[in-house]
Amino acid sequence: MAHMISIDDPHDERLHDYVDLRDVSLRRSLEADEGLFIAEGEKVIRRAVEAGYRPRSFLLAERWLNGLADILQRSEAPVYVVDEALAERVTGFHVHRGALASLERVTRWRMDDLLDAQRLVVCEDIVDHTNVGAILRSVAGLGWDGALLAPRAADPLYRRAIKTSMGAVFSLPWARLDDWRGGLQRLREQGFMIAAMALRDDSVTLDDLAADLVARHRKLALLLGTEGDGLSAHWLSQADVVVRIPMGHGIDSLNVAAAAAVACYELRIR
Amino acid sequence: MAHMISIDDPHDERLHDYVDLRDVSLRRSLEADEGLFIAEGEKVIRRAVEAGYRPRSFLLAERWLNGLADILQRSEAPVYVVDEALAERVTGFHVHRGALASLERVTRWRMDDLLDAQRLVVCEDIVDHTNVGAILRSVAGLGWDGALLAPRAADPLYRRAIKTSMGAVFSLPWARLDDWRGGLQRLREQGFMIAAMALRDDSVTLDDLAADLVARHRKLALLLGTEGDGLSAHWLSQADVVVRIPMGHGIDSLNVAAAAAVACYELRIR
Repeated sequence: MAHMISIDDPHDERLHDYVDLRDVSLRRSLEADEGLFIAEGEKVIRRAVEAGYRPRSFLLAERWLNGLADILQRSEAPVYVVDEALAERVTGFHVHRGALASLERVTRWRMDDLLDAQRLVVCEDIVDHTNVGAILRSVAGLGWDGALLAPRAADPLYRRAIKTSMGAVFSLPWARLDDWRGGLQRLREQGFMIAAMALRDDSVTLDDLAADLVARHRKLALLLGTEGDGLSAHWLSQADVVVRIPMGHGIDSLNVAAAAAVACYELRIR
Repeated sequence: MAHMISIDDPHDERLHDYVDLRDVSLRRSLEADEGLFIAEGEKVIRRAVEAGYRPRSFLLAERWLNGLADILQRSEAPVYVVDEALAERVTGFHVHRGALASLERVTRWRMDDLLDAQRLVVCEDIVDHTNVGAILRSVAGLGWDGALLAPRAADPLYRRAIKTSMGAVFSLPWARLDDWRGGLQRLREQGFMIAAMALRDDSVTLDDLAADLVARHRKLALLLGTEGDGLSAHWLSQADVVVRIPMGHGIDSLNVAAAAAVACYELRIR
């Protein structure tokens, strides 16, 4: 059973895991150094714990104790009970959902674990945490098998990515593609057709690619590029096919998370 | 030709349109009172002006003057040239794209202008500006005719909505549905089939609905509900059909902007 501890000093050392949650660069180094990540909101905390991540501590306003009682009961981690003003002072923002947890960051999957997949999304340098979160949620929700992320893509275990994914990052297998230069070759050797999403004259439409996949029963790795500039020339040059979503009304492109959702839907295994 | 004015006092009254751009509630009242909106970044400013919105002023760092030279040349509005530190002090954030414009807010379309459409998205209380921006971009990009927004949905002309939409909010016809209670009846009278996106047992899948539309050549209004809670019972009760995107991996739902993109793609006119 978790141990309840009331805290009323915002500088209490035990709250260190939760400081300045809006300061992205501080959080990046703090979370890497300490090997932790933060989950926010009852539903997301529950999903993290149920997926097997180990809580280091909880930070809750009193009114959230009941909602998480079963989770707290099964945990050894301390529960810091604070009022909402103190939570705001420590974290730097108003914690709408009133509940935070700090959990141990572990690597659950490696690229090798994903090579038996039929459908993988591969994110190059997608830097926005809400985009990464939304993409991983769509990948999971639309029945794809997993995601690979290039070294510079945003962290799926960053608080806002987790929140936007509604915890999908805890159940969907995903891994870093450590080798940006040579990693796609690995996928090709494993029988993946490599499709790059990009706006190019030599591209095929999404439904043409879907028909081709159905006809040929191919494993597919779908490459998505960074917001704004899209895929690097190096990755584009390695694709078997370039695919586009046909656009209207003089619009160039969709938001990358919207494009990912459309592609995962159209190219799903049927 | 626009008039260039160097400003080095952050409290200069002429910068009033640009204060505290991150303070959503302040900006809401300021922009409504003054009848303005803010566009950010060269590409988006260009699209606003080319779509016919009239600039009140520009706020630029010197290095952005060249990129917008043609736009500035054709405008009568003053150009306030400031250094980036001053821009940050006034606006409250680091203006990555170095260029801002304040433009006159005008109502370009009303609900009546959209009733000849074949495909409309109707957003109930979607409150996140990036979701509204991404949705309107998908609606436009995927060839739908326009969007209606319930009274409490987020403002498509708010800076972040504009930015996420990449300016699609300037070209796509959209309007407020002023009558939340009775507005859907208006759509029905105009021959729209009303489809509600929701997770319900009596829902049909997206591809079943697409097949039905193709078979019956129906005009379609697709209702999207607020983040989290979804559509109100009142709107759900008025739908002709409830539609869902089939989900896998134990995931409940997609992010609303991702769901909108998938639905607009699958239900497009072919």
